[in-house]
Amino acid sequence: MALHTGDPLYLALASELRSAMEEGRLAPGARLPSIRETATMRRLSMNTVLAAYRLLETRGLVEAKPHSGYFVKAQLPITEGRPLRQAGRARETELAVLDQITAVITAQALPGTVDLSLACPRLGPWYPGEKLGRITSRLLQQRPELITTYSLPPGPPLVRDQIARHAQTLGMKLDPDRVVLTNGCLEALQIALRGVTRPGDTVGIESPTYFSLLPLLAELGLKARELPTHPETGLVLGTLEALLCEKRLAAVIAMPNIHNPMGSIMPLAAKKRLAALVNLHKVPLIEDAIYAELQFRAPLEPAVRAFDADGWVIVCSSFSKTLAPGFRLGWLEGGRFHRELAQIKFASSVAQPALLAEAVGVFLESGGYEAHLRHLRRAYAIQMDRLRGLVADHLPAGTRATSPAGGYLLWVELPEGCSAQGLFQKALAEMITVTPGNLFSPSGRYDRYLRLSACYSLEGPFTRALSTLGRLAREQLASARG
Amino acid sequence: MALHTGDPLYLALASELRSAMEEGRLAPGARLPSIRETATMRRLSMNTVLAAYRLLETRGLVEAKPHSGYFVKAQLPITEGRPLRQAGRARETELAVLDQITAVITAQALPGTVDLSLACPRLGPWYPGEKLGRITSRLLQQRPELITTYSLPPGPPLVRDQIARHAQTLGMKLDPDRVVLTNGCLEALQIALRGVTRPGDTVGIESPTYFSLLPLLAELGLKARELPTHPETGLVLGTLEALLCEKRLAAVIAMPNIHNPMGSIMPLAAKKRLAALVNLHKVPLIEDAIYAELQFRAPLEPAVRAFDADGWVIVCSSFSKTLAPGFRLGWLEGGRFHRELAQIKFASSVAQPALLAEAVGVFLESGGYEAHLRHLRRAYAIQMDRLRGLVADHLPAGTRATSPAGGYLLWVELPEGCSAQGLFQKALAEMITVTPGNLFSPSGRYDRYLRLSACYSLEGPFTRALSTLGRLAREQLASARG
Repeated sequence: MALHTGDPLYLALASELRSAMEEGRLAPGARLPSIRETATMRRLSMNTVLAAYRLLETRGLVEAKPHSGYFVKAQLPITEGRPLRQAGRARETELAVLDQITAVITAQALPGTVDLSLACPRLGPWYPGEKLGRITSRLLQQRPELITTYSLPPGPPLVRDQIARHAQTLGMKLDPDRVVLTNGCLEALQIALRGVTRPGDTVGIESPTYFSLLPLLAELGLKARELPTHPETGLVLGTLEALLCEKRLAAVIAMPNIHNPMGSIMPLAAKKRLAALVNLHKVPLIEDAIYAELQFRAPLEPAVRAFDADGWVIVCSSFSKTLAPGFRLGWLEGGRFHRELAQIKFASSVAQPALLAEAVGVFLESGGYEAHLRHLRRAYAIQMDRLRGLVADHLPAGTRATSPAGGYLLWVELPEGCSAQGLFQKALAEMITVTPGNLFSPSGRYDRYLRLSACYSLEGPFTRALSTLGRLAREQLASARG
Repeated sequence: MALHTGDPLYLALASELRSAMEEGRLAPGARLPSIRETATMRRLSMNTVLAAYRLLETRGLVEAKPHSGYFVKAQLPITEGRPLRQAGRARETELAVLDQITAVITAQALPGTVDLSLACPRLGPWYPGEKLGRITSRLLQQRPELITTYSLPPGPPLVRDQIARHAQTLGMKLDPDRVVLTNGCLEALQIALRGVTRPGDTVGIESPTYFSLLPLLAELGLKARELPTHPETGLVLGTLEALLCEKRLAAVIAMPNIHNPMGSIMPLAAKKRLAALVNLHKVPLIEDAIYAELQFRAPLEPAVRAFDADGWVIVCSSFSKTLAPGFRLGWLEGGRFHRELAQIKFASSVAQPALLAEAVGVFLESGGYEAHLRHLRRAYAIQMDRLRGLVADHLPAGTRATSPAGGYLLWVELPEGCSAQGLFQKALAEMITVTPGNLFSPSGRYDRYLRLSACYSLEGPFTRALSTLGRLAREQLASARG
C-alpha cells in the first residue's frame, strides 16, 4: 500500500504486516501477536496497534475472533504469467468479440442490474464534487461568456498549463502549447490512432487490453496484433522488438502504468527500453496513462514518455478516473505528431466545453489536487484489498487474481472448468453483470478470466452479487466435472 | 424577414416595404412616401410608420436625409446560379485546400486580428447565458453526482426527449431513444460518416460546402464528389440522381435548410424528391441541420428528414449556434443506422458531459427556447440586412452576395479580377481575416468568393476592417486591369 514519508505510525505498522502476509511470513490462519505484545515489542501505544489491526480488518486481510485475537485470512493466490500463443487470425472470433462487447455494455446499462466490473467510478463522495461545483458556479457567474461564446481550440491556457505542470509527477516534461483537450481519454486514443495510422495498418496491443480499443481499431480499419504481457510487469518486450525490426507495426498502444485490466506497472528498465525501441524504429507509441496517477505507492513510477528522446511517445490521459468522472475532460500531448493531432481534433469535434476545462484548471491551480489524489489512492488501495478478500471468500477454491499496483480493476482467473462467457450469461439471468475475459483480446482468449471493479461500494448488493457469482461458478465447475 | 402572426404593425409595414425593394418596386434612390402620407394612406399612427422607417434604417436598407425624408439605398445585387463544371480530380489542389484551411484557422486565432467570417457567435448577450448559468448552478448544488459519477451513454433522458419534441418544429418525428448526444454537430457528422462509409468510398457533397468537411473526408480516406447547387435553392438534384443511379456514391451530405455558406433553403418539392431518391437508392443522406432553426421566416420550412420513409436520412445538429455556443452539445438521430452510430460514439468518445446535457434539457423543458429563438432569428435577420448594406457600401462596385434565408453567413461574390486568396493574404497583413471561397470546395474553385459572418458586432472595428478590405479589393482590381 501507499507509504508516504510522514505517514502515521499505524499505517506503517499495517503496511509492514501486509508485506509479511504477502511474502508468506504470516501464513493464513496464523494469529497476530496480541495488541499488548506488539505494543510492548515495538514501543508503540496500544491505540496505534489497535488502529493498524483494525485497518487490516477493514481491508479484509485479517479477521477478529471474539476473545481470541486477530487471525490472518486466506490469501487470494496471485495470477501467474503464461506464454501467449499466437492464435490464427480468425475474423469470426473478432466479430464475435465485438458483438459481445456491445452485449455486455448494453446489459450493464439495464436498470436493476448489479454491475461488478465497469471502470466507471460510482463512489461520488470520494471525488471533490462540492469544490468543483463551487468553482464552476463562480465561473458561471463571473464569466457568462464561457456559455455564450464559442468553445474553440486550443482551449483555456490555465488547464493546459496545469496539466503540463502536474505531468511532472510522472516524470514527463510536456509543452502546454501541445496539450490538446479531448472528450475523455478514449477520444485522445482515437485521435492518436487516426493521426499515426492508415486503414489496413497493424497496431501492436497488449494482450489482454482495454476492451474498448477493439471496436475502435476495427472501425478504423486497423488490424490488432496481440503482444504478450505478464500480470505483474505488463508488456513483455521481446515479441514487440522482433515485430518492430520486421517493420510490421504502424503503432503500439500500451498502458505501462496501471494496466487495464491487470493493474501492472512495467519495471523502470523495461520502460526505458520501450522508449528507446520506439525512438530507434521510429514507430509511435500511444501511451495510455489514464490510471497512472492512481498508483498505490509514492513516489509515482514515471511514464514511458519521461524517457522519450525524439517525440515518438504520444501520451493520452483524462480526469475521468481521478477528479471529475462527469466532465469527460481528457487530453493528449502528441510530441512530434502535435500538429496533425491538433488538426484531427479540430476537424473531428472542434474543442471541449471551455467551462468545464476552465473549472478543472482552477481546481488544479488551487493546489488541492495532490492532496485529493493521496486520499483517493489510499482509499482505492484499501478497497482493492477488500475486493481481493471478497473474491477469496466467495469464488471457488483455485481462483487466482492479480495484485494490482494501483487503480481499481482486478483481473480474476477462475479455476479450470469455468467459462467466463457462460458465467456472464448465467449471472445476467440473475441481474448481475461482470466483464468476461474474452472481451479483452481480439482472439477471444482469457475465457477463464473476469474483470471486477472496486470503484463501487462493496457493501450489501455488491457482496451478495459476488456470492451469487461464486455459487454460479461452483455450479459450472460441478457440471464440468460431472 | 420573419413575419409572425401577431407581429406588431410596424414590423408588418417594414417587411412589406423590404419586399418592395427586393422586387424592384422601390428602386435605389427612390424616396419613401413621407411619414404623414403613409400614415394617412394606411390608417396607421405616425409613430407606427416612424418605427417601421427606423427599423429599415437600422437594417441599412434606407437612409434618412435631413429635411428630405427616407431614401432607398443601393441594393447589393444577388449572386446568380452558375453551372458546375467538374474539375479534374487534382490531388494537389485538394491538398493545397486542406493546407489553406489550417492557415486560415490559425490566422483567425491570432490575437489582435479582426475576424470577419468565422461562424462562431460572439454576440454573448444574444444568448441566454444568465438563465443557463442559473440552471447549471442549481444542478451543481442539487445533483453533485453530475460531476462525481461517470457520464455514460445514452445521456440524460430529459434532453433527448426535448430534442425529439422540439424537432417537430422542423417536421421531424424523432425517437428520443435514438438521439445520440455528440460533441457538437461536427462530431455528429464525423460519426455518421464513419458509420455509413468505408475508406475509399465516394461521398456526394454540395459545392460550395462547409469547409471543415473537407479535412474530415480526407482524413477518413473518403473521396468527395462535388454536386451543383444554386445560391437560393441549394442542392440541385439532377447530377445527384445520375450518380445514385450509377451507384457511385456511398453517402450524401447536405444542408437543405440554411446552407453554409450560401444561406439557401431547398424548395419543399426538392426536399421531398431528395428524401425519395435516397430511400429509393438506399444511400444514406447525412442532413446537417445546424442552422435550420435560424430560418428568418416562420413557420419553419421542414427538414428533409420529415419526408424520410425508411430511415435513410441521418439528421445531425447542435445547440452551438442557437443556444449555448460554449457547451458543445450536438446530437444525431441515425434512423436505420442508429445501432452502429451509437456504438461508434461509444467506442469513439463514450458520452457527453451529463451536467451540460442536463442543463440544456432543463432549459428546453422550461419553455423558454421558442421565445429565445424568435428573438435570435429576428436579431440575425436585422444583422444580415446590415451586413449586406455594409458590403454594398464598402466593397467594389460589381460585388454581389447571396440573400440568405436564415443564419448569419453571407457568401460574397467579388467582381472579375479579384482573387479571394490574394485578398486573404493582403488582409492578413493588416490583421484582418476573411474566409476565401476556394476553401469551400476540394477543387479550390470559388476564388472570387468570400464568406463573411454577421455573428459579430458590426460596429467600429468590423466596419473599419470591411472598409479596409474594400480598399484592398479595389487595389487588386486596379492592378489586374493595369
